[in-house]
Amino acid sequence: MSATLDVAPVTIAAWRAREACVAALERAGTPAEKAEIQARNLVEADLRGHASHGIVRLPVLLERVGNGRIDVHAQPVVHRHGVAAATIDANADFGPCAAWLALSVAAESARSHGVGVVAIRRANHLGLLATYVERMALDGMIGIVTSTTEAMVHAPNSIEPLLGTNPLAIGIPVDGADGPVVLDMATSTVSMGEVLRLAATGSPVPAGWGIDEDGHPATEAARLSTLSTFGGSKGYGLSLCLGVVTALLAGTPHGEEVRGTLDTTSPSTKADLVICISPGVFGVETAPVAAYLERIRNSHSDGAGFPFIPGDRSRRLRAERLENGIPVDRDVLRSVFAAAGDPFDTSP
Amino acid sequence: MSATLDVAPVTIAAWRAREACVAALERAGTPAEKAEIQARNLVEADLRGHASHGIVRLPVLLERVGNGRIDVHAQPVVHRHGVAAATIDANADFGPCAAWLALSVAAESARSHGVGVVAIRRANHLGLLATYVERMALDGMIGIVTSTTEAMVHAPNSIEPLLGTNPLAIGIPVDGADGPVVLDMATSTVSMGEVLRLAATGSPVPAGWGIDEDGHPATEAARLSTLSTFGGSKGYGLSLCLGVVTALLAGTPHGEEVRGTLDTTSPSTKADLVICISPGVFGVETAPVAAYLERIRNSHSDGAGFPFIPGDRSRRLRAERLENGIPVDRDVLRSVFAAAGDPFDTSP
Repeated sequence: MSATLDVAPVTIAAWRAREACVAALERAGTPAEKAEIQARNLVEADLRGHASHGIVRLPVLLERVGNGRIDVHAQPVVHRHGVAAATIDANADFGPCAAWLALSVAAESARSHGVGVVAIRRANHLGLLATYVERMALDGMIGIVTSTTEAMVHAPNSIEPLLGTNPLAIGIPVDGADGPVVLDMATSTVSMGEVLRLAATGSPVPAGWGIDEDGHPATEAARLSTLSTFGGSKGYGLSLCLGVVTALLAGTPHGEEVRGTLDTTSPSTKADLVICISPGVFGVETAPVAAYLERIRNSHSDGAGFPFIPGDRSRRLRAERLENGIPVDRDVLRSVFAAAGDPFDTSP
Repeated sequence: MSATLDVAPVTIAAWRAREACVAALERAGTPAEKAEIQARNLVEADLRGHASHGIVRLPVLLERVGNGRIDVHAQPVVHRHGVAAATIDANADFGPCAAWLALSVAAESARSHGVGVVAIRRANHLGLLATYVERMALDGMIGIVTSTTEAMVHAPNSIEPLLGTNPLAIGIPVDGADGPVVLDMATSTVSMGEVLRLAATGSPVPAGWGIDEDGHPATEAARLSTLSTFGGSKGYGLSLCLGVVTALLAGTPHGEEVRGTLDTTSPSTKADLVICISPGVFGVETAPVAAYLERIRNSHSDGAGFPFIPGDRSRRLRAERLENGIPVDRDVLRSVFAAAGDPFDTSP
């Protein structure tokens, strides 16, 4: 990534960014419905403060469309393995389109049988996972989504990038005004997107984020070659298990053979897993959860900050950005509007 | 815990320790089959290096039997919610007895329908979770087990203990000689048992393990009052979600109202969750997993140690300790053999 990248943020209304993404996707031949689903996923990431999964990803998606790695007319196929399990062959569909289909299949199983598990293969990048598990939680169900990703994370005592950033998202229904629990995290310390952003501005990185090519702890973003897992050996164990389980159930490759979310030319060989569980089928009430979460939010603080529940901060940020706009790197905005053929003025 | 505790380790054969535990449980009125299941769980923990879940726990279990909080004749009841979901009311059974029942119910669902989810309420302490997920993995299935535990962990920016140590275990089938992936970890930095052991010897603790009563980072074990979650905000998010999902599905209380694994007088209000998924039903092969794990084990090392897969180290330790015996604190051994009415000589 060039050190001359213009990362000065421009603020733009979310609806304006979404329209531009839809227009760019439609210009590339994407039917309106798929374009809308993909564009919403990108802008939701920017609204919630996950810029690395935001509209910055659009140019790669468009190149993948151009190279035939995303099939804009894809018809995913659902293979049911009985009433509670299924595999979706996404046939190179946009990730969010495959994900929403998987959600509907998993939720249908969960409503009737308590649980549904759906493995997805040959989908493109699912993008922000938070919206999927939030949807299941808003529908009164526990949602879990995880994905394999390109290998760029090392195991403890290894210096080779053999693990993905293997994200995990969990949504839990909560009665009341605060909204569901929404956890959405990579199992690496940080995303490579964030490292690349810092590298472009010559920034240092905190200890523990990753290692350089010689296996030493990286202190400058520009020299970080391989990310570390969060949480030491425990985080590594979790990341490895998520990646192996997801690839195993989807029947896709592991480790270095995972492709298709970052490059523009490889078929997608990654996997995604959606699990939906219905508390209602278990005959339990969700009401006590809200009281417990409030107890944590209102617990004695350490003075440096306030206790929070996963999802609180991105929900607040989303409300604020819906009102005031999302900050986007100027160069990103230029490329999105150029692709949309939209004469929006992005000059400083 | 007294500072005069005799924690000098004595080495004892695993079978000898198990026989003593069985005898002690039988003397307290436990039928032979339940005594054997509970005793094996305790000794397995010592064999695998999880001393905090080993035979050190026997005295509390015996007191709970004496106080009627463990019903040695308990008959757990399985409530099925369709073909893939169930709740087990353990009726104050020993934890391992309830857990093995839950496993059989979950595995039966998984074999037929791809997945089985079983929530357990009113069981006593499940103890070491590794054996359960290992069993599912050896049977060719992915196993996930998690439990709620007494609140002794704080949320970020909070200084109150409102979360449990909420352990997570994951087992994944692997073809070949190395054995399955077996992850078994608390979502706290460390177990309170380990802190108490260090406190008994006046030891320091590493930064990040927990905080003292004033909310400051604890440096001495004796002043650590509340544990921290592993992995910062991400570990917290995972711990909270595991605890909430498990209690929600079992219909048991959250946070400070969780009781029954550490004290001797409270009914068990904790919850356990068993999830079993069958790759076979998804029509996939488990073979590629073994090659990927070998790739990690044989990857370029950082020179300070060798890359490992979760389960490798405890499997090696177990083999070594089956041959050479398990190390147990002398005072623990004394109390176990006294309870067994066994004249084993534990003097220095």
